[in-house]
Amino acid sequence: MAELDLRAYLALRLPEVERALDAALPERGAWPEPLARAMRHLVFPGGKRLRAALALASAEAVGAEPSRAVPMAVAIELVHTYSLIHDDLPCMDDDDLRRGRPTVHVAHGEAEAVLAGDALLALAFEVLLGTAGADAAAVRDAAHDLARAAGARGLVGGQIDDLRFDPAGADAKSIESVHARKTAALFTCAAVGGARLAGADAAALRRLRDFGERLGIAFQIADDALDADAGDACSYLRVAGERGARERAEALLEEALAALDAFGERADALRAIARAGVRRSE
Amino acid sequence: MAELDLRAYLALRLPEVERALDAALPERGAWPEPLARAMRHLVFPGGKRLRAALALASAEAVGAEPSRAVPMAVAIELVHTYSLIHDDLPCMDDDDLRRGRPTVHVAHGEAEAVLAGDALLALAFEVLLGTAGADAAAVRDAAHDLARAAGARGLVGGQIDDLRFDPAGADAKSIESVHARKTAALFTCAAVGGARLAGADAAALRRLRDFGERLGIAFQIADDALDADAGDACSYLRVAGERGARERAEALLEEALAALDAFGERADALRAIARAGVRRSE
Repeated sequence: MAELDLRAYLALRLPEVERALDAALPERGAWPEPLARAMRHLVFPGGKRLRAALALASAEAVGAEPSRAVPMAVAIELVHTYSLIHDDLPCMDDDDLRRGRPTVHVAHGEAEAVLAGDALLALAFEVLLGTAGADAAAVRDAAHDLARAAGARGLVGGQIDDLRFDPAGADAKSIESVHARKTAALFTCAAVGGARLAGADAAALRRLRDFGERLGIAFQIADDALDADAGDACSYLRVAGERGARERAEALLEEALAALDAFGERADALRAIARAGVRRSE
Repeated sequence: MAELDLRAYLALRLPEVERALDAALPERGAWPEPLARAMRHLVFPGGKRLRAALALASAEAVGAEPSRAVPMAVAIELVHTYSLIHDDLPCMDDDDLRRGRPTVHVAHGEAEAVLAGDALLALAFEVLLGTAGADAAAVRDAAHDLARAAGARGLVGGQIDDLRFDPAGADAKSIESVHARKTAALFTCAAVGGARLAGADAAALRRLRDFGERLGIAFQIADDALDADAGDACSYLRVAGERGARERAEALLEEALAALDAFGERADALRAIARAGVRRSE
């Protein structure tokens, strides 16, 4: 079958996510303006919205309207943004720039950055739990997955292990364990949660979990391979070099794609997002 | 009717909450140990668990077993603890001591304190959304309330206004607005959420919301009155003095108690908690 035109797909689907993000983050009225500005800083403009796209494409893979996954897409982008804001703080990675712009604590102050992150995390749950027109148990379960992915078992646990990572003890397993929590947990949550809101059955959710776990690690290893000069302690380059990293990412991508076989061509958007996420050259 | 013996009530009911908190925060195995230690630091020993008690007593007020509200009680204590950890950070109130012990960032490091707070917030949702044996829509709605109470509309918005509070412009309304968000939002969430998990109807939930909103502000004004020397910018003492603060707290307590009239004696535990919370002398 012909490969889906990913650029056209994203141009068609993502504007609904941007509008929903904008509506969830009013510039004034709902909450103190200095907080509103700090909360919006890194959300607009955002990154590639790859996680949001996964949620939408996953609803499509189970035969539903992608729009049904919009609250999941918004929630995932908010959690992703919160984690970047806190990771950039002086007491963590102490980064001044993110996507070529000042980080939130540089632009808005450190207390504001901590609080903006906190508020974005809470807002993710508010948006997701406010999903209209979905089964209550599906919404509850999608939010439960999100809580696990965001917390000590997922993002936060991965970040603390990353901060304390000892390059001398680096092996493929310890690096993939950090990647699984810092990156793959949210990828999985996006893919599974999008399908949950769309009413998917347990077998479909299992396949999407397999897909997300492998894709997330592949994505992060591909990231390591692109970032050859950065010298992060916890990079796959340390144990396998650039070529080894690309081969491992490719092998995991193949496993991720295999998990989608049963969905047929309805999963073409998921496949295209996965390939584009792992086979990057920029 | 005779007043309930609050001390005996709490001694009977709170151990179940302590056990559930302990189970939700394993010392090892589930996540990185430095994170687990930082997460537990301020949870054990905790404060008076007033918010947890509200959740249990509120289930009782609507005629249910208090145990049904345990996940709500645990979630509220976790959110309360997370907010104290982040409020104490050097970039916020910069406090070294809390309840006579080193604060989390002093004892475990600043990055660990930020991450422990983040993880406790996520864990609150994980515990609440994992509630077994309750109606899925009730669980979803209780968690939605919690997200609103914890976020920019509630705790976080109150904290940023508190940090930026201008004592020159202090009036009763601006102070009560901060108290409503920093304190009353969680009190309300505990009271309403405990009843939600217990299957309460909309009329009961409305009464408990009225109760929680007034009690929370009364509690914080009583706190201001006890803390006459502390000189917080955002204290009711600034606009009304100690006697005025005590009178305002008492008036709000009466309004809170009036909201419970329709529950009859089933709300005696709620009444006793409310009186003890506002009429403190220590």
